[in-house]
Amino acid sequence: MSFTQAAHKLLVIPGPIEFSDPVLLANATPGTAHTSPAFIPVFGESLSLLREVLLSKKESGSQPFLIAGSGTLGWDATAANLIEQGEEAVVLNTGYFSDGFADCLEAYGAKVTQVKAEVGSIPTDDAIVSALASKPKLLTITHVDTSTGVLSPAGHIASLVKKHSPDTLIALDAVCSVASEEIKFDEWGVDVVLSATQKGLGVPPGLSVVLASKRAIQTVESRKTPIGAYYISWKRWTPVMQNYEAGKPSYFATPPVQLIYALNTSLKAILSSPIADRFAAHKKASAYVKDSLAELGLDFVPKSRDIAANGMTAVRFPKGVTAPDVLPKLAEKDIVVAGGIHKAIASEYFRIGHMGITAVDRERGDLEKVIKGVKEVLGKA
Amino acid sequence: MSFTQAAHKLLVIPGPIEFSDPVLLANATPGTAHTSPAFIPVFGESLSLLREVLLSKKESGSQPFLIAGSGTLGWDATAANLIEQGEEAVVLNTGYFSDGFADCLEAYGAKVTQVKAEVGSIPTDDAIVSALASKPKLLTITHVDTSTGVLSPAGHIASLVKKHSPDTLIALDAVCSVASEEIKFDEWGVDVVLSATQKGLGVPPGLSVVLASKRAIQTVESRKTPIGAYYISWKRWTPVMQNYEAGKPSYFATPPVQLIYALNTSLKAILSSPIADRFAAHKKASAYVKDSLAELGLDFVPKSRDIAANGMTAVRFPKGVTAPDVLPKLAEKDIVVAGGIHKAIASEYFRIGHMGITAVDRERGDLEKVIKGVKEVLGKA
Repeated sequence: MSFTQAAHKLLVIPGPIEFSDPVLLANATPGTAHTSPAFIPVFGESLSLLREVLLSKKESGSQPFLIAGSGTLGWDATAANLIEQGEEAVVLNTGYFSDGFADCLEAYGAKVTQVKAEVGSIPTDDAIVSALASKPKLLTITHVDTSTGVLSPAGHIASLVKKHSPDTLIALDAVCSVASEEIKFDEWGVDVVLSATQKGLGVPPGLSVVLASKRAIQTVESRKTPIGAYYISWKRWTPVMQNYEAGKPSYFATPPVQLIYALNTSLKAILSSPIADRFAAHKKASAYVKDSLAELGLDFVPKSRDIAANGMTAVRFPKGVTAPDVLPKLAEKDIVVAGGIHKAIASEYFRIGHMGITAVDRERGDLEKVIKGVKEVLGKA
Repeated sequence: MSFTQAAHKLLVIPGPIEFSDPVLLANATPGTAHTSPAFIPVFGESLSLLREVLLSKKESGSQPFLIAGSGTLGWDATAANLIEQGEEAVVLNTGYFSDGFADCLEAYGAKVTQVKAEVGSIPTDDAIVSALASKPKLLTITHVDTSTGVLSPAGHIASLVKKHSPDTLIALDAVCSVASEEIKFDEWGVDVVLSATQKGLGVPPGLSVVLASKRAIQTVESRKTPIGAYYISWKRWTPVMQNYEAGKPSYFATPPVQLIYALNTSLKAILSSPIADRFAAHKKASAYVKDSLAELGLDFVPKSRDIAANGMTAVRFPKGVTAPDVLPKLAEKDIVVAGGIHKAIASEYFRIGHMGITAVDRERGDLEKVIKGVKEVLGKA
């Protein structure tokens, strides 16, 4: 069955992104029972493929979860399952979404210490090591903060945790990095990767994507107090996910069948080439966008290129130019970018997403179109 | 743009159900920003149309919520927002899904009293009135328990609550009843209707559908303790939903854009005729199925027709016949029904769904096909 999606403006915000025709067709799969022989292997395979994208082996005991929800639900899952009342969590804060993770942890009773970085920067090693002195239960990293485009060196930070407080669990908010930035789940010793589908994974929004380590699952099992939530209890979901991965139907709450078909389609496309090539393609796309914008004399929100995300670019307006001068004019050219959302600098920058097919399938010409549009709108064509 | 869904087996379980081509096409909407001028009115309108389906007026102060999640998430939302530690909740138990709601309430600290009915029956008025003597904070009704097909007389129960404990909040689990059974939200004085999209609303699963009364929202606002959750906090979502309904973009977590397009398409189709006609069509479809099965000498799980759901039928196997004798043979005829799931009688019955287009668009011939299939498989053709 062939399908061509409707004509539409080019969506180059940092998520949702452009979706491929096969992914959208999969999202239009006819009514299918969540326990049907057709669907069970699709769900099971999707769980396994998610591990592959995150460079994790099943033998590590890592446990994937695909649950109806947004990326934000992963914060709740992390907090509700891993934190008991009054336990300490350290949040490495690189922007708006780190603020949110901290708020969420507090809602579940965590005592949160934030290690804040200047806007566009990352916390220093010294600050991180200091925060680890109290041996917190959990440390969170926002891999790419979508508000600033800052990329945290997650592997390096994980190594600091392993050295200075090895019992501290590590949660990586990878909503804006899964499948666009390399994540070595097993090698780094991360305990939770939480994400969503509408960014690097290239699937419509509505699916919470989580991988938990064996240690994280053991932490849940050895809680002293019951989990103060229901829908996101890993105790309830773990057997369901394990059954599906083993080819057996199982029920706790109805999975979003169509979204899982869509994710399966996208994961297979992603893994049809070596995953390293995909990350390289995102780096190349990012360099093209950033170099092109730099040539126009524009500055970036991240203080340096080595802490700038490869799946998005947060770029400052030229002096005297504001969002209403740029975004509506790009929209007239059928190019949809996003405004700033970091409170401290919201009016000073805008954001371009370059994840998924836009970054990998360069024959589409998406990025050339964006750069051309930006040049024209800024009068630099 | 025209679209015809792929050929597939007829899905007549009590959810997910058959989806129309326009709904599936809407679920394949190209990548669209959750804050785009195209999407904002679609989201806003969907919130308003949901009120219409539930016979609620905006002036009543009722607040709709459409959030990525399954129907189960509505239990969490009800419990987390309305219950504070140790408060009493009465669960009227008519099956498996009432058990779940009770478990969920307990996870959030409620002191739960269950009023259990015999399998296939509903609690007596006397039992309900007794349970209200302690003036509980909340009473829950499972409108249609999908495990038994029992329809609770929600309006009547609400009137008992109003008479005997008017301050008790009323939560109606309407996962298997919205748009297939009449719900008079304002007239009955219900405080929460919680549902999902994959049943009577005829949209793929993945969207939690909730309507909360003004009194429920006020209860949240006057809590003594903070909400012990984040993603499902109505405090966080209420301004977002109000902004979208007022035509303004807003952000807390990314909405499932494609599912909301699909819901919008379905809600418009549902409301293209008087809603009373829709409920009548479901009653007629239900009567056809139940009468046809009764003619074959089959019995039903609900003890009487007046407490049997109109969107599904839970029917007992003839003596000596079990699920493996029937379900696989129906599947060979491309008819997918569901087995029993109520622990006490799981092997003794099966379930047929007749919601949405299967019930309303009788020219499809879905129900005639099901009845013919059942007759053949039982050797009664």
